[in-house]
Amino acid sequence: MKVTVIGDGGWGTALAMVLDRNGHETTVWGPFPDYLEEIRSSGENKTYLPGVEVPASLRWTSDHADAVKDAALVVLVVPSRFYKPVVEAFKPFIPADALVVSATKGLDEETHERMSETAEKILGRPVAVLSGPSHAEEVARGVPCAVAIAAKDHAVAEQIQDLFVNDTFRVYTLDDVVGVELGGALKNVIAVAAGISDGMGFGDNSKAALMTRGIAEITRLGTALGAKPETFSGLSGIGDLMVTCMSRHSRNRGVGERLGKGETLEEIMNSMKMVAEGVWNCQAAKELAAEKGVSVPITEQVNAVVHEGKDPRQAVLDLMSRAPKPEGI
Amino acid sequence: MKVTVIGDGGWGTALAMVLDRNGHETTVWGPFPDYLEEIRSSGENKTYLPGVEVPASLRWTSDHADAVKDAALVVLVVPSRFYKPVVEAFKPFIPADALVVSATKGLDEETHERMSETAEKILGRPVAVLSGPSHAEEVARGVPCAVAIAAKDHAVAEQIQDLFVNDTFRVYTLDDVVGVELGGALKNVIAVAAGISDGMGFGDNSKAALMTRGIAEITRLGTALGAKPETFSGLSGIGDLMVTCMSRHSRNRGVGERLGKGETLEEIMNSMKMVAEGVWNCQAAKELAAEKGVSVPITEQVNAVVHEGKDPRQAVLDLMSRAPKPEGI
Repeated sequence: MKVTVIGDGGWGTALAMVLDRNGHETTVWGPFPDYLEEIRSSGENKTYLPGVEVPASLRWTSDHADAVKDAALVVLVVPSRFYKPVVEAFKPFIPADALVVSATKGLDEETHERMSETAEKILGRPVAVLSGPSHAEEVARGVPCAVAIAAKDHAVAEQIQDLFVNDTFRVYTLDDVVGVELGGALKNVIAVAAGISDGMGFGDNSKAALMTRGIAEITRLGTALGAKPETFSGLSGIGDLMVTCMSRHSRNRGVGERLGKGETLEEIMNSMKMVAEGVWNCQAAKELAAEKGVSVPITEQVNAVVHEGKDPRQAVLDLMSRAPKPEGI
Repeated sequence: MKVTVIGDGGWGTALAMVLDRNGHETTVWGPFPDYLEEIRSSGENKTYLPGVEVPASLRWTSDHADAVKDAALVVLVVPSRFYKPVVEAFKPFIPADALVVSATKGLDEETHERMSETAEKILGRPVAVLSGPSHAEEVARGVPCAVAIAAKDHAVAEQIQDLFVNDTFRVYTLDDVVGVELGGALKNVIAVAAGISDGMGFGDNSKAALMTRGIAEITRLGTALGAKPETFSGLSGIGDLMVTCMSRHSRNRGVGERLGKGETLEEIMNSMKMVAEGVWNCQAAKELAAEKGVSVPITEQVNAVVHEGKDPRQAVLDLMSRAPKPEGI
């Protein structure tokens, strides 16, 4: 089966490696021919997935038409900030019968749309979602993990599941596209807060309290936006939040940790090659919550740090010292 | 206010230090006069809370009547295996108007009762529950954390909350005694499984998948036993599970990690001074699930390792390789 991954970042490369392992003829599209040539010749995606050997069977191209020619599956994995123009550029070339799945975790900064919403509008066809706890590097190395695939049409979710699933890459299907996608997008904001707590030297208890209240916050907002609350108790909700907040690999948590240790956001962003979606998405999440009248205290504090220059330590202290009250209110 | 903590383990000592910080006249009961004398003279609870300075204002006694004399609050923090006889011994001495709260996380091995259920039967009065993500050492050091207190009578939960709450020890009140207590008891079993995954060198993804399915398993069993499902999404459910599975401090996770690295259970238990409730409680949890017809695959695998000599690595591999299916089923 011919399949295409649009996006040569760490997650795109890891997903391409899963598809390649499953015997599919896999092409990865990236914007820069020189960088793709470097991957091809070195057998390593040095910037986005350093230290992992990339199989020679993967095909790399920066040509839109060539990338998706005869593809039975197209996976969209482009950072949220570049998502819209890239999907627009691919519109004329994606085969009419291809399955399309979005694996980007983020929100559109202007419209506040979920990524698959944006893709569906541009492409005029249903777009499924792949999300869940899954560090690119671990997936690329074949460490066991489990993710969720959501599509409105269950048969579509199962077709995509069949292409991805293997012994170490477990795939569960759901029909709650909104819930699966929002879980992946909103957890990045909470991870920044968890990282600040780490950076300040707070312990596991503090972080667990933040994470627990974080998933409650995500569930409140997600439900208001049409998701099923139980989706947030699953892999793509609390599962993904846990990985992101616990892991040393997580960029969003890492940005928070450096903020908590006293670096400025500018210093941190200047030193990073990769994308921390939580830093980009906190404002969209805050504005969505305001539109729906949902309380999102953690997202608000992260937004105040990122966009209003608030002292990150004060932000976490403000969260910790909120008045105790019956849980869940 | 005179308050008493029954149990001189790490968690009992930490809770006593919170009460002491809040200005209460705090007594801790422990079974061995010599050990209490050592704590008193060294200012450290060396076996159960090493490296933490214990305030001189705490009073230590092994006399039952003396321990609870005039106490307005009695906190039960005795390991599950010794819980029943200790509570029985205190029955004649606890003042009629004292508030009683249970902070032990476990199940009775014979009757499968929750600890507060056992205490209520023995004492013939309502017993509240304190649970949540809270490593003793961090609490003792004043690192911020948040816990849940549950009582059938909300006014009682608030009275106990008032005695415990301070700037770094946040207390939330709930009325779901069953849910709060089961969250604390059942997560220890899942933590053993998470530890095995760590010990085998599996990554964050694998562990997050286990934890996510673990909280689903706890929620299924807890709900069948009369808890509210939403309680398991809170601090005393997923919050506590996260801390226990993430933390280097956790004994239950630590036992699992050593199993995953190839040590035998006997070697591990012989080298531990402290209690790993998950090892004791997995059978009770499995039997409760069987009585209620609830599927608990993780608990079953942990039980097979602990009580049937199953290879822990095979147990985790069996969990990981279960057939993919729609999530939540």
